[in-house]
Amino acid sequence: MEIIFTEFENLALWTVLGSAILGIIYALLLVRQILAMPQGNEKMIKVAHSIQAGAKAYLTRQFRTILIPSILLMAALFFTADFTHHLNVAIGRTVAFLAGAGFSALVGFTGMSIAVRGNVRTAAAADSGSFPSALKVAFRTGTVTGMFTVGLGLIGASIIFMVFKQEAEQVLIGFGLGGCLLALFMRVGGGIYTKAADVGADLVGKVEKGIPEDDPRNAAVIADNVGDNVGDCAGMAADIFESYEVTLVAAMILGLAIGGEIGQKLVIFPLLVRGVGVLASIVGTYFVRLCEGGTNAMGAINRGFWISTIISAIGFLFFATYYVNDIRVFWSTVVGLVLAILISSLTEHFTTTKSKPVKEIAGASRTGPATIILAGFAVGLESSVWAVLSIATAIFASIIIYVGFGTADIMTNITYVLYGISLAGMGMLTTTGIIVSEDSFGPVVDNANGIGEMTQMGEKSRTVMTQLDAVGNTTKAITKGFAIATAVMAATSLFGSFCEKLIQAGVTSGFVINIANPRVFIGMLVGGAVPFLFSSITIRAVGRAAGLVVMEVRRQFAEIKGLWEGTAEADPARCVDICTRSAIKELIGPGILAICAPIIVGYLFGAEALGGFLAGLILVGQLLAVMLANSGGAWDNAKKYIEDGNYGGKGSENHKASVVGDTVGDPFKDTAGPALNPLIKVINLVAILITPLVATNLLINPDGVFNPIIMGVVLVAIVLIGVSIWYSKRSSFSYETDGLGKVLEK
Amino acid sequence: MEIIFTEFENLALWTVLGSAILGIIYALLLVRQILAMPQGNEKMIKVAHSIQAGAKAYLTRQFRTILIPSILLMAALFFTADFTHHLNVAIGRTVAFLAGAGFSALVGFTGMSIAVRGNVRTAAAADSGSFPSALKVAFRTGTVTGMFTVGLGLIGASIIFMVFKQEAEQVLIGFGLGGCLLALFMRVGGGIYTKAADVGADLVGKVEKGIPEDDPRNAAVIADNVGDNVGDCAGMAADIFESYEVTLVAAMILGLAIGGEIGQKLVIFPLLVRGVGVLASIVGTYFVRLCEGGTNAMGAINRGFWISTIISAIGFLFFATYYVNDIRVFWSTVVGLVLAILISSLTEHFTTTKSKPVKEIAGASRTGPATIILAGFAVGLESSVWAVLSIATAIFASIIIYVGFGTADIMTNITYVLYGISLAGMGMLTTTGIIVSEDSFGPVVDNANGIGEMTQMGEKSRTVMTQLDAVGNTTKAITKGFAIATAVMAATSLFGSFCEKLIQAGVTSGFVINIANPRVFIGMLVGGAVPFLFSSITIRAVGRAAGLVVMEVRRQFAEIKGLWEGTAEADPARCVDICTRSAIKELIGPGILAICAPIIVGYLFGAEALGGFLAGLILVGQLLAVMLANSGGAWDNAKKYIEDGNYGGKGSENHKASVVGDTVGDPFKDTAGPALNPLIKVINLVAILITPLVATNLLINPDGVFNPIIMGVVLVAIVLIGVSIWYSKRSSFSYETDGLGKVLEK
Repeated sequence: MEIIFTEFENLALWTVLGSAILGIIYALLLVRQILAMPQGNEKMIKVAHSIQAGAKAYLTRQFRTILIPSILLMAALFFTADFTHHLNVAIGRTVAFLAGAGFSALVGFTGMSIAVRGNVRTAAAADSGSFPSALKVAFRTGTVTGMFTVGLGLIGASIIFMVFKQEAEQVLIGFGLGGCLLALFMRVGGGIYTKAADVGADLVGKVEKGIPEDDPRNAAVIADNVGDNVGDCAGMAADIFESYEVTLVAAMILGLAIGGEIGQKLVIFPLLVRGVGVLASIVGTYFVRLCEGGTNAMGAINRGFWISTIISAIGFLFFATYYVNDIRVFWSTVVGLVLAILISSLTEHFTTTKSKPVKEIAGASRTGPATIILAGFAVGLESSVWAVLSIATAIFASIIIYVGFGTADIMTNITYVLYGISLAGMGMLTTTGIIVSEDSFGPVVDNANGIGEMTQMGEKSRTVMTQLDAVGNTTKAITKGFAIATAVMAATSLFGSFCEKLIQAGVTSGFVINIANPRVFIGMLVGGAVPFLFSSITIRAVGRAAGLVVMEVRRQFAEIKGLWEGTAEADPARCVDICTRSAIKELIGPGILAICAPIIVGYLFGAEALGGFLAGLILVGQLLAVMLANSGGAWDNAKKYIEDGNYGGKGSENHKASVVGDTVGDPFKDTAGPALNPLIKVINLVAILITPLVATNLLINPDGVFNPIIMGVVLVAIVLIGVSIWYSKRSSFSYETDGLGKVLEK
Repeated sequence: MEIIFTEFENLALWTVLGSAILGIIYALLLVRQILAMPQGNEKMIKVAHSIQAGAKAYLTRQFRTILIPSILLMAALFFTADFTHHLNVAIGRTVAFLAGAGFSALVGFTGMSIAVRGNVRTAAAADSGSFPSALKVAFRTGTVTGMFTVGLGLIGASIIFMVFKQEAEQVLIGFGLGGCLLALFMRVGGGIYTKAADVGADLVGKVEKGIPEDDPRNAAVIADNVGDNVGDCAGMAADIFESYEVTLVAAMILGLAIGGEIGQKLVIFPLLVRGVGVLASIVGTYFVRLCEGGTNAMGAINRGFWISTIISAIGFLFFATYYVNDIRVFWSTVVGLVLAILISSLTEHFTTTKSKPVKEIAGASRTGPATIILAGFAVGLESSVWAVLSIATAIFASIIIYVGFGTADIMTNITYVLYGISLAGMGMLTTTGIIVSEDSFGPVVDNANGIGEMTQMGEKSRTVMTQLDAVGNTTKAITKGFAIATAVMAATSLFGSFCEKLIQAGVTSGFVINIANPRVFIGMLVGGAVPFLFSSITIRAVGRAAGLVVMEVRRQFAEIKGLWEGTAEADPARCVDICTRSAIKELIGPGILAICAPIIVGYLFGAEALGGFLAGLILVGQLLAVMLANSGGAWDNAKKYIEDGNYGGKGSENHKASVVGDTVGDPFKDTAGPALNPLIKVINLVAILITPLVATNLLINPDGVFNPIIMGVVLVAIVLIGVSIWYSKRSSFSYETDGLGKVLEK
């Protein structure tokens, strides 16, 4: 089908692009506003500068390291397109990949840069004793990241669509993959970085030397503060950025598959949805403010969320009625809006300090660390069940909207149903602007609180910051659940698109992935194993990197004269560099796994088995990610609940037991769990890209002819995965070597 | 198709029945031999009697409690058959259910009864200082259970087949379900029992009162020893018994589906395989012996294993060549034999004391309990990946045997391929006799060692028993991995049979379960959630039951005068009764979940979605079960490795950290993990049984007609599951109430 825009569509698309640019302008205005704020006293500025320097060191190193792998992938991407017939698509896909990766990096970079500047200004605002103005600075800092996420995402998508029209989806896949891969790097790297610094700093500082949490003599303390920004801010923004992209790609592929005049409308509708979302987010975030004397920060944030949800729903209703002329597309987006709220409530129920499950975990501390671990694990497992049932319900609702309760019509209207599911994903991500703002708000107030502690601020301003920090913990936990759910909805939408690609490639004659075919069943088993392997690798990586941090901090105490006495300064940049280097080194394994696993399954077992592989991956990835994130969050808050004076309070045996739970939860909730999101999306995109290749070339073709080139590709992929598993196991939690063969002192 | 036996087949079937009876006779001879052995001194006899009394109390209570639910289910089963047209099948199925449950109970009962008598005789043999004779007594005790498992299983199956011929598979489903349900009760109940007693005894004895591990003043010590038999012996035997049954059922369903003369042979071949296996097991177990002065017990056991494997392979080759005239059925069974060996090696690699992963976990103890938990968790996750890949490889091998590497022929020969997969499951279970013997050997030597400790035996005899105990730990861990793999192979075979049933019920025209159909995808999501929910419930249950044990032991110390001084005796029967009562009470939830979940999915989303549900269940069940079992086993042995004098040895801080890991691992490896095996099998069987019902009656039929009766059924099922989840959460790890609303003292 060829797309020719009507006059209205032309106008609408330019308006969408305009609203995306408006989002960026709004963000830039906020940046100017924030930078004009006072930074507080010299002591505060000094600490803030250390964090800024650390953040810059991380970014410089990370982007330098991933440059070459990215260029190699870009080149490989060119050959996945049919470049002999559609050179423009091949070039477009390659360039779009670069743009996607670049935008994702930019979102992360901007978000982190402003966060490490907003933190000290929040602290300064709190120092004046005003809760509302501290909230305003912190939330607006978060909003910059939120607006960059949606603005850049929409600019890229709408320009690609306006240029490539009916071929846009093929180019957009490149854009999505670029964003996904960078998000994977950011999530895995950021996750390992932040927890290596956190655990490492605690092991030397609190356990070995007996000095307080944020003591500036501990060289890893700055790295720990940098880590908060790297993990929660940059990683999360890049992650949601790509879910934002990827649901759009999925909806467009399915809209094009429907075809005809209605198909064109269904391709354009998602862009309109995104445009409405950006405008609604601008309005919503603007309303996150309190009158002087107010302290209900969560109420203000929720008000902003509801305002943008309602504006969005009205916008969707308008376009569904007057443009698409089909009310069903409206209901599909509403399913997504409701799912976002449902998932947030579930996360809140299972992880906030005041909830029953968290209190129960805290109570289990009375019989020691083992029972607290078991209690948290049981809660994590259960929370996963409800999350997956919510997603299943959303899918069921999408079915009912398009074909009702009957089973007969579903396969004849399957493209519509799948399109509806991808619209639910779109709807869920409508509030991305405000959700990312909420999330980035977390590390800003966390850092502000840290600066307050390090510079010994007064009682009144500390109270303001502690309150804000508590709010930040809640918003961080909620957005974590949101990020996982969006990743699953995005992956499910991509799974639908993958089925469409199977038909295009001539593998199947209809939407069929037959799990009763033992090859497909094998694919499913292997796909389910991937998240387990991936989590195993990332959890080990945190252990190893933390060991390296321990060694460096010990070295500084031993070699820098006067450091212990406080007359000389620690060298935080070295710890930052170690965290960066080892975090990025650990990226290799997960990155290879994400790209090679679908290649192996596709070539060995066929394209349809790749479908089983994706299904297994999505199922297990979802279950494991929620379990890890929520058990980690619940342990964290169970510790906070005890620190609030329950079950013996700080310093008691029960508190010590809860610290064990918290430390186990750290890599669960901040490394392994969140990194599963980009993993499942990258693999889905890779599967879509290789389907045309796999469909025509199997290791052994149906007629039994053996293909030595494919054999070579499969072998290389297997060797690469093997090497990365071996690499990830070289050294262990025992920290006996520094991971490069050098034996550590203990 | 109608089955008419040839003369040779008649003879062969009677020979199979004869070999099964021979197995039972062999077991009875061993019983006589064991009971004739000396029981040692009076002190030993007294301890042994306490354990025997406890075991009997458990069994009495358990069988009494499950009587009524079993009868209700039996009645329900009658109506799943087409009783108006095939009354004989309906009656047969019902009676077979009773026989399956009865046989399963009998296997558990006999195994446990002889184990609690063999333990003291093993101790007495060790007291004479002879390692070979202690090994002989202990292993022969285990062999009794092994022989009852295979003998009763084969007697039931061959009689049913000879009576019902082509209708046998429909009756055998009842036999399988009876065995499965009882195994589920035994596994869940036994698992909760043994860990409640273990954790409860430790919490009061070691932690609160500071008395040694097996102090007779602790009323829970006997319960702990009983628990070993209940969990490892009775639970495991019942579990493997039903895998043994269920693979046979699956192979017969698929053989009948192939039909014709070859189909008849393919239905009879599995029975011949079983017959060969029984004879090979008798020979193999007989060769587990050492010359006087020998100490290589593991070598002797492995020799027995290899002898039975080789004899079996020769037997399979004979029948494949001269009866079926198709060498492929031989190769399929060989795949199973190889898989059994592969899985055992994997489990050994990840969990034995001398392995690298276990040493790494032990090393992580130097940075405290949190890192030991993380290290063990990472190892558990990784081990699951290799286990699932092994199973995928076995399935792939089955495909290659029947249709080669090409993709084209697979769906035209699908019944053969699925039959081949079920034969692999059959092959894997060939060595059941010796595997169950190895497993039951574990608790026997464990108990013997405990009796040795309690009665303060001499140095030399203690050394013999410690060595035997170490061997028992290894065999127990290996058979745990084996049990999970057989459960998955059994479930996969049943999944194949389910597809066949879909065709019979007219739901699909070929072997199709289309995961691209969003309804089927929903089914898969829900199926994957079930093992998470189930594990969450069972882990909580252990916590709660342990709390009850703590309360009772405290009460006895407070109320029985002279207990602390040693002038009065504790009342172990009460602890045993509490463990039994609370364990059985906790069965309700898992049992309801297993039966109601497939009913809900089937009626709400249709029969094909039930296929997706089973696929998700098998995938996640397998991954989670292996992860739980192996991480638990690895923590246990990491603790043992430290107790052997590494990293500071017993009593050090590192040892304390490893005890935390061990306690977390207890319900992982002995409750939640193993109980997943019967769960996935029961659900598969229930799905097969309800397929004909679901196919004709949906909540809302394809033409949109609403069925109020089905609505009622679904609602009742949802309410039942809801109530059991609520029930499982009533009280928590905090042990604040006794689970019945009564507030516990703390």
